[in-house]
Amino acid sequence: MADMEELDALEAAEDSGGPDFESLHEQRIEEMSSLLEARRMKQLQEMLEEVDEFEAAEFLTELPPHQMAMVFRMLSKERGAEVFAELDAPEQEYIINSITDSELGNILDELYLDDTVDMMEELPANVVKRVMRIATPDTRVLINQYLKYPENSAGSIMTAEYIDLKKYMSVKESFARIRRIGADRETIYTCFVTSKDRKLEGIVTVKDLILADEDAVIEDIMDDNVIFCTTTDDQEDVSGMFSDYDLLAIPVVDRESRLVGIVTVDDVMDVMEQEATEDMEIMAAITPSDRPYIKTGVLEIWKNRIPWLLLLMVSATFTGMILASFEDALAVQAVLTIFIPMLMDTGGNSGSQASVTVIRSLSLGDVEFGDIAQVVWKEIRVAVLCGGTLAAATFCKIMLVDRLLMGNPGVTLLVAAVVCLTMLLTVICAKIVGCILPMLADRLKLDPAVMASPFITTIVDAISLLIYFTIAKALLHI
Amino acid sequence: MADMEELDALEAAEDSGGPDFESLHEQRIEEMSSLLEARRMKQLQEMLEEVDEFEAAEFLTELPPHQMAMVFRMLSKERGAEVFAELDAPEQEYIINSITDSELGNILDELYLDDTVDMMEELPANVVKRVMRIATPDTRVLINQYLKYPENSAGSIMTAEYIDLKKYMSVKESFARIRRIGADRETIYTCFVTSKDRKLEGIVTVKDLILADEDAVIEDIMDDNVIFCTTTDDQEDVSGMFSDYDLLAIPVVDRESRLVGIVTVDDVMDVMEQEATEDMEIMAAITPSDRPYIKTGVLEIWKNRIPWLLLLMVSATFTGMILASFEDALAVQAVLTIFIPMLMDTGGNSGSQASVTVIRSLSLGDVEFGDIAQVVWKEIRVAVLCGGTLAAATFCKIMLVDRLLMGNPGVTLLVAAVVCLTMLLTVICAKIVGCILPMLADRLKLDPAVMASPFITTIVDAISLLIYFTIAKALLHI
Repeated sequence: MADMEELDALEAAEDSGGPDFESLHEQRIEEMSSLLEARRMKQLQEMLEEVDEFEAAEFLTELPPHQMAMVFRMLSKERGAEVFAELDAPEQEYIINSITDSELGNILDELYLDDTVDMMEELPANVVKRVMRIATPDTRVLINQYLKYPENSAGSIMTAEYIDLKKYMSVKESFARIRRIGADRETIYTCFVTSKDRKLEGIVTVKDLILADEDAVIEDIMDDNVIFCTTTDDQEDVSGMFSDYDLLAIPVVDRESRLVGIVTVDDVMDVMEQEATEDMEIMAAITPSDRPYIKTGVLEIWKNRIPWLLLLMVSATFTGMILASFEDALAVQAVLTIFIPMLMDTGGNSGSQASVTVIRSLSLGDVEFGDIAQVVWKEIRVAVLCGGTLAAATFCKIMLVDRLLMGNPGVTLLVAAVVCLTMLLTVICAKIVGCILPMLADRLKLDPAVMASPFITTIVDAISLLIYFTIAKALLHI
Repeated sequence: MADMEELDALEAAEDSGGPDFESLHEQRIEEMSSLLEARRMKQLQEMLEEVDEFEAAEFLTELPPHQMAMVFRMLSKERGAEVFAELDAPEQEYIINSITDSELGNILDELYLDDTVDMMEELPANVVKRVMRIATPDTRVLINQYLKYPENSAGSIMTAEYIDLKKYMSVKESFARIRRIGADRETIYTCFVTSKDRKLEGIVTVKDLILADEDAVIEDIMDDNVIFCTTTDDQEDVSGMFSDYDLLAIPVVDRESRLVGIVTVDDVMDVMEQEATEDMEIMAAITPSDRPYIKTGVLEIWKNRIPWLLLLMVSATFTGMILASFEDALAVQAVLTIFIPMLMDTGGNSGSQASVTVIRSLSLGDVEFGDIAQVVWKEIRVAVLCGGTLAAATFCKIMLVDRLLMGNPGVTLLVAAVVCLTMLLTVICAKIVGCILPMLADRLKLDPAVMASPFITTIVDAISLLIYFTIAKALLHI
């Protein structure tokens, strides 16, 4: 948030880059820090109420714990809840442990239900117990109901705070209802029309309401072609619906088609960010975690990484066993060893390219299992092109560098032929393995992201060595 | 979009999984296909006007080109533009080439400006020329102005269709203005208050307007702490602002602080998806492309992949040269060869884990260059834990499998010690390299994603071999 005055000041500044939002942001946080240092609490308090809650939360997070709790207690009831919702779990936990029951009750009253549920899912059991004891019975029932939905389902990210209208209401009555209950609803821009038994009958946007005559009846202006999801739908599918249909909110129905909540676009943006992070972590052979890296403990990071490293290490020993079984061949033609890293790495990289492309296409819904023949055929053609180019480049490199420049006597024309032929075949196998495995994983309802670089590399390493020595034995007669 | 009737029907069905949106979606597309097959054009036309534009576009995309153009021309003017905006570039191009100038003019009139600009950026030059010739002069100027903004900047994704209000207007007057100009604005829910010289003075949401008294003056209810971005801001930073501040639209100002457009949340969701895809592609050593994989030609895929494969292959030859320089050592202790793939792979995987974690944290803004000491210290501790575990596991495996089971006489206790010590040191080096390189790349304004698995693996391969042979020479006296 930039005051227009600050904007004017910046504009007057000589640098021609225009106003810079980031620096204003840091400036405000620094200003708060210096107010705190100078113990000008009144001004600090005013500023904390004025800045965006995200900035206030960022300022709090940077303080040592005891100061954080002290500054937090200076906030008004509403502001406290807003800022609290923006904090990460460790800070939330610290604050809950440093405030009184009535202060905590105030925060719970003001928090949106989905923020409360998010918080409950991350807090340790003893803190959850205290929160549940202090929450009002209504909130308690709602929290319980929400917590029952499977993790990463539409039910687990939905909110119960929405505007519901009836078919027979007029536009004027609808606006009156929005005015009455809208202030504490997360979004008012999409209103949901429900029957007496809470079944979803249609939706009407505030844009429709504004553009309609005030005596028009909801039934006539509502859209009964509703895009909806169910409580158990995967949150990734729900976020796909938002980007496909450009929605601001989507209704969530239970198996009896009753409206039980809505998912809003801001929650979905968090889901998209989280799902992309998870995919990248799985692709790098890490167990995904919800906590930001910088706040995760060393032991937890170790726990997320070590099982995969062990598993991949065991798989890599097969490659070692293949090498061992060709020890005699290597003893005769030691020069073959030189090219092993290059062949293994290039094979691994070629396979990763194919697998990551297919994994991402699967997750965006561009490709599905039925396309497997088309995908494999495409990858084979790409592989022939890539493999051919790489083989040609390798041949030139071996002739120029290894033979002419380094004068390695072992590097004969026949050895070069073995290496180039291996290169071509390895790249083709790598691309085929790289595109098929993620699609098979998807078919078996596994996460295709598991089939990324680390696994593909391990498999392709073994394949490339087998190809290498088979060709070498045949051509070099060893 | 599910009709409530369809919902009721589904509900009556016996399966207990509740209504399924996906199957309704496919059902509607199939229904359209069978209408077309039966040549029941009137019903098909009605259905196309009724379903969501995304579904209509999906149906069109699945048709052979000549049928696609024929069906497209059945659509009404408004519908045609809506569906057109949802099509991918190749289909858009085909349709532009099959319709008359006046039909094209109609589509351009109805398209939102940002959709037009998106389209222009993807079309070949001759098609762009025809579009520019047919567009009205106003649209032409706007398109030109938009196309000047750098790719991936806020300017390139913004739209000029927003609601602007004045400070002195009353709430009632504001609603009148929204009713007058709102129908063809992309979002009406955030209104922007501007001065006479188009400077941004504040924002007011439709929620504020609805909850306010109708005689209230905008100046009193507007928020003058505006979160804004500038035309040249990177779209990734803008999308970060949306998720930090939970916005529906953000104003874009030029360097004179004049309001020139807005970025809406649906555009930002596309940006998030696109940026995540790009990061994953770069991490897998692929030049990113905007086109979906399934629609990209084999030659283009080859062009996006081959430069990186060649570059990495050349780098991998250094690893080969290191191996070559230790040929004598390997000749004396051939058993050392067996463990090379495992050491290289484990090193590469350990490094990738660290690099991908840091790359993602950098792109989410959780980590910045100033945190480098903290990050390196954390990775060293994780590396000691991981390396220690892996070394212990390797020791057990060598003793049990290679010595007892396989009875390999070359695998002595000393060899096992060399392998385990190499494992520990390689993992430590890999994690340090893996976390430092992305941070350095970020500092040098390069994309940190380049420093993912493929590059890290190549570097770590060389490091692990150097460590291996140095230790082997020292301990085994070869």
